[in-house]
Amino acid sequence: MGVRYTSESVEALVEEFSQLPGIGRKTAQRLALFILKQPRSEVERFSAALVAVKEKVRYCSGCWNITEQDPCVICSDPKRDHTTICVVEDPTDVLAVERTNEYRGLYHVLGGSLAPLDGIGPEDLRIKELLDRLWDGVKEVILALNPTVEGEATTLYLTKLVKPLGVAVTRLARGIPIGGALEYADEATLSRALEGRVPM
Amino acid sequence: MGVRYTSESVEALVEEFSQLPGIGRKTAQRLALFILKQPRSEVERFSAALVAVKEKVRYCSGCWNITEQDPCVICSDPKRDHTTICVVEDPTDVLAVERTNEYRGLYHVLGGSLAPLDGIGPEDLRIKELLDRLWDGVKEVILALNPTVEGEATTLYLTKLVKPLGVAVTRLARGIPIGGALEYADEATLSRALEGRVPM
Repeated sequence: MGVRYTSESVEALVEEFSQLPGIGRKTAQRLALFILKQPRSEVERFSAALVAVKEKVRYCSGCWNITEQDPCVICSDPKRDHTTICVVEDPTDVLAVERTNEYRGLYHVLGGSLAPLDGIGPEDLRIKELLDRLWDGVKEVILALNPTVEGEATTLYLTKLVKPLGVAVTRLARGIPIGGALEYADEATLSRALEGRVPM
Repeated sequence: MGVRYTSESVEALVEEFSQLPGIGRKTAQRLALFILKQPRSEVERFSAALVAVKEKVRYCSGCWNITEQDPCVICSDPKRDHTTICVVEDPTDVLAVERTNEYRGLYHVLGGSLAPLDGIGPEDLRIKELLDRLWDGVKEVILALNPTVEGEATTLYLTKLVKPLGVAVTRLARGIPIGGALEYADEATLSRALEGRVPM
């Protein structure tokens, strides 16, 4: 590229923004110029929020979700069903399930899914930590991984590990999404929906 | 939405990222979780870069480009042609022109273009500041605004103001972009290219 901003600190900020996932150099430039136009107090608040996250947030030693207290509010809630564990890939997935207001059990955040091609093997996920929790009166493990190749592989892998321990293993139903139209459903989804058809 | 992260500081950071232009809540969540996984030292560097920009960067009192020294390196360079001023909308446009390695004159950054519908009038741009510079031996003003409706309107507006002062006013050539194919050129571009045809 060669030509850089006439200001080193703008250049440094563009560099920082470009490190973020999904943000290219053009977007990073736009964001840096936006910051430049913001009132100083707002930029300071943003700056402080970044450091605060690293200072205050840790992983729950129970479910590995992000939390500011350990164990997290979900793991330490006596009103939740401690005999059911919903296994998800990331903290955002916990949020997605919580949003349904349907689930009252606990969670286990794996930290991703098995992706051998990206060098992510079982030892990179919190699988051992999941197995360690299953002695504690747990009756059911719900596998709620993403419907991707990696998520499917991880689902099968975990099923093989958990089932022999005498714990029920279930997975999320696959089918036509609510509000989706049949004609737009892809073949894989539609064939899963047929396969899993339920009596009326 | 209702359900929030179990951590207030993650929620606060998501909020900060969503304030950025073009970044929705989903992307903001992804960015916040990315920050959470980064080493503390890198997050601190990012945080410091934000504040540094507000602390160190100012606008050049000559050309209104962003700079850490006033006047900026371009305005204070005696080897540049101080009789020619290239008028652009934003600091990124200065960068774009510099990248050509063709231009040796000075710049003037307007800070946008006239957009009455968005409430941006002449007094919101650095137009008065441009006119104030034209007494100082300036021979040519090159209008290099964006080829948008607003950019065109601003070009016409500035032409009317600058020409009576006895300063030559030029604009960038419009035509088929290098590497572009005729069949994909829109009619407006093609008609401009015909209009501005040059003898061989």
